[in-house]
Amino acid sequence: MSKQPNLMNKLTSLAKRRGFIFQSSEIYGGLASTWDYGHLGVELKRNVKNKWWRDVVTAREDVVGMDAAILMHPKVWEASGHVKNFADDMQMCRHCQKLVRSDHVWGMIEDSDWYRSLSDMYLKGDVTGADLKKWGETKAKKLAPNLAIARNPSVTISWLAERMEAAKDSQVIPMRELVQYLATEQLKEDGLQTPCPRCGGELTAPRPFNLMFKTHIGPTEDEGSIAYLRPETAQGIFVNFLNVQAAARAKLPFGIAQLGKAFRNEITTGNFLFRTREFEQMELEYFVQPGETAKWLEYWSQARLAWYAALGVRPEKLRLRPHGEDELAHYSTACYDVEYEFPFGWGELEGIADRGTFDLDQHAEFSGKKLTWFDTQSGEHIVPAVVEASAGVDRTVLTILTDAYHEEEVPSTGSGQGKGETRVVLRLSPSLAPITVAVFPLVNKDGMPELAKQLVDDLRGDFSAFYDAGGSIGRRYRRQDEAGTPFGVTVDGQTTEDQTVTVRDRDTMAQERVSLDKVKGWLREKMGS
Amino acid sequence: MSKQPNLMNKLTSLAKRRGFIFQSSEIYGGLASTWDYGHLGVELKRNVKNKWWRDVVTAREDVVGMDAAILMHPKVWEASGHVKNFADDMQMCRHCQKLVRSDHVWGMIEDSDWYRSLSDMYLKGDVTGADLKKWGETKAKKLAPNLAIARNPSVTISWLAERMEAAKDSQVIPMRELVQYLATEQLKEDGLQTPCPRCGGELTAPRPFNLMFKTHIGPTEDEGSIAYLRPETAQGIFVNFLNVQAAARAKLPFGIAQLGKAFRNEITTGNFLFRTREFEQMELEYFVQPGETAKWLEYWSQARLAWYAALGVRPEKLRLRPHGEDELAHYSTACYDVEYEFPFGWGELEGIADRGTFDLDQHAEFSGKKLTWFDTQSGEHIVPAVVEASAGVDRTVLTILTDAYHEEEVPSTGSGQGKGETRVVLRLSPSLAPITVAVFPLVNKDGMPELAKQLVDDLRGDFSAFYDAGGSIGRRYRRQDEAGTPFGVTVDGQTTEDQTVTVRDRDTMAQERVSLDKVKGWLREKMGS
Repeated sequence: MSKQPNLMNKLTSLAKRRGFIFQSSEIYGGLASTWDYGHLGVELKRNVKNKWWRDVVTAREDVVGMDAAILMHPKVWEASGHVKNFADDMQMCRHCQKLVRSDHVWGMIEDSDWYRSLSDMYLKGDVTGADLKKWGETKAKKLAPNLAIARNPSVTISWLAERMEAAKDSQVIPMRELVQYLATEQLKEDGLQTPCPRCGGELTAPRPFNLMFKTHIGPTEDEGSIAYLRPETAQGIFVNFLNVQAAARAKLPFGIAQLGKAFRNEITTGNFLFRTREFEQMELEYFVQPGETAKWLEYWSQARLAWYAALGVRPEKLRLRPHGEDELAHYSTACYDVEYEFPFGWGELEGIADRGTFDLDQHAEFSGKKLTWFDTQSGEHIVPAVVEASAGVDRTVLTILTDAYHEEEVPSTGSGQGKGETRVVLRLSPSLAPITVAVFPLVNKDGMPELAKQLVDDLRGDFSAFYDAGGSIGRRYRRQDEAGTPFGVTVDGQTTEDQTVTVRDRDTMAQERVSLDKVKGWLREKMGS
Repeated sequence: MSKQPNLMNKLTSLAKRRGFIFQSSEIYGGLASTWDYGHLGVELKRNVKNKWWRDVVTAREDVVGMDAAILMHPKVWEASGHVKNFADDMQMCRHCQKLVRSDHVWGMIEDSDWYRSLSDMYLKGDVTGADLKKWGETKAKKLAPNLAIARNPSVTISWLAERMEAAKDSQVIPMRELVQYLATEQLKEDGLQTPCPRCGGELTAPRPFNLMFKTHIGPTEDEGSIAYLRPETAQGIFVNFLNVQAAARAKLPFGIAQLGKAFRNEITTGNFLFRTREFEQMELEYFVQPGETAKWLEYWSQARLAWYAALGVRPEKLRLRPHGEDELAHYSTACYDVEYEFPFGWGELEGIADRGTFDLDQHAEFSGKKLTWFDTQSGEHIVPAVVEASAGVDRTVLTILTDAYHEEEVPSTGSGQGKGETRVVLRLSPSLAPITVAVFPLVNKDGMPELAKQLVDDLRGDFSAFYDAGGSIGRRYRRQDEAGTPFGVTVDGQTTEDQTVTVRDRDTMAQERVSLDKVKGWLREKMGS
């Protein structure tokens, strides 16, 4: 399927308009890649989290929950490897002052305008000394003002001449080799690095930049007071393994699950809720006999893929993708991603990984505590292996909104909706929709508001019910379509006569008349409850 | 009622044993005043939060929820006054290296051993020059090694002599005056401050210490990248006022509610869950016509007090305390605290405050946006006033655990429980208890485990149900008493014969036989559902 970047803009706009998602601190110009959930968004998110908790924790006898603090002892992150390994090498351009991840430099160079222009010129044909001289002195100077060639064209030209002599068969020296020379061989003499992929300027030496947010506990800001905002909830489970296992008297295989905020000081964020610095995780660590991880990896991969389909997400937009060997984290021997096809491409919703005994081993080593489980069958203390299922709440919300978003032509109906009009409708699963039923008085007179209010008060005990008397009935239907409200009930003139109301289905827009006293039953049947 | 510090220790111990609360990062020696919720604690906390959300948000037509990010634009905290005012002046002792809050210094000095010893000696009678000399040179040197008197007794003595001459009527110079002189007049010559209340050493100059945790977004740690962990959830509501009001099309009076983590870098923490650096808030900001705050302050104070009683907390341990004028925050004109009588004294659970238009005014000024609501009745744009109800999740959990904790003598019963034995029981409200019903096979044979498992699987869809086959039935009852599980069902030898089971009430310990197929109905009746 083709990419639809426009859909993301429409979705962001709808999300704001209807109160799903706002840019955080918007009145102050926003905080980059940070989002707040509005009155509908918070209910949608609660429904997602509650469903996860029910399906993964309370409905299962082999999983218990827990909730660790966001601030943990800094040793936790030494043991987990985050202090040492959870870092990207970063370089700053001395010319444009922008930061770049070292492992992105060459890819970005090859994508950059200045590189492509140089490359085009070079590939145009035989390159003479005069061309090169001109190129070096004028064009390249503009394109990449700090690149070696611009500063010292004669050196470049003589190097090129040598290379062309050496490579007589191919008239053309690979561009990458040329730029690498320009950028590194020559710059090396000045003690500099690869060029900035944005402007060709000089980059500072790579310096590891840890992705954990750092703060200090207590009034002194020194090494001893450092604390990190957890970059994942998983470690809160591992360090509590002994306490939870003992208190819950759990036996292998069993899981410990946790829901909560995590933070990563990402350099590259974006795509709405997809990659943010603050996000909420739903993590399950499932402890098994060390020989049984393959079986449970398969089990949880399938179970978790099915879970998203059960949320109403179209199965053809979901896939399970095994990680290649080069993608695996250092602690993992096998991993599947549950992916959804977003308008910007396939993106990860959840990772299901065989973490082996890595985490418990590490914490045992760093804490000096024995993190084992006594197997009464074998009479041995063993270190359980772990299969992890780590999902993102915000990505799940984004998936649900994206998948539910539809624009469609409204067919002509009896209620005065014009043919050819386009409506936006969120086809949210009724069990996830923030509002289950909206109740409208057709007009604000003749006892209709009173009857409608009475009905909504009556429904509110059993359903998420919402009363709306503002604007024409058509506009009210549209607003609820955009809010994803599956059912609408309208109190009209006939209601006072025969005690019936109109019930409307969001997706089919079909309407039927139901007795006032049967509305609850009708809704219960529709909700399957 | 007398204070029972011992109860807190017992509670902490029970909380760990049963999986309610663990010390955070315990295997690494813990992180001060930070706690993790275990498998029962997380369910208790979820029940509290869900009840609050239901009672304050979804059951009301005048309140909507939202969920803002923890990281907000730093300007938010300038506007709210937190950057400037949410700070304590702190001083460090150059001798003992301890920190002290400036406003605590004199109180702590007057309570300190060294001050009292000096005072005792001084008040013993006529102080001669020789006494003073001796005192200065030996005793005081030991008591307060860095105090001026110990370093320069002759100056002190001559000052004292002068003062005694001047105050001929009273033989005694007030001790505070003396120490202040010793500490400040004399030390001033050295450019130093008041003495350390702990050791009499020299304190550094007072420096404001902000209680907000600070971090940096992005790789550079400078002023421009500072972000704070929110010290309250309230501001997330105020900065989103326009967006939420518009999307929800809300009309005064209406409330916006939020549940979430907040962080304060407190110098003094303690009393288990009562004062922690990381905590969860349940906050309601209720927007009203500016003239109506008194009415709504009264309404919400009474409503919120009643809410805690509805959680099953004994009403005689709850009170509503109006703030004295000197206690009011700068933004507030009136405030009530809901308080609970903890073993360590009365403590605040929730503050209900008239915040007036302070917050919206501040954010309007700092953001340049008009934060008003259009009153169609008067045809005017007005700044709504706010009544806030701000509660602590963790304090509520602590209250519930404390209030539910009972030790009692177990009367002799037919099930072999010895008379005179003491049991610990958590008398949790059934709607809050992490486990509603525990199911036990009396012994692990004769088909009892199979029947019990079948029953627990059947119950799990409707109740939080738990299966336990470990240890004697008496021990299993005790464990569930400590977990606060209100109901127990035992499958025994008779079950296979007549399809009846024993149901047991946690509080009365009364047992009766119920048909297997009636267990659900019996539980529903007990739960009032």
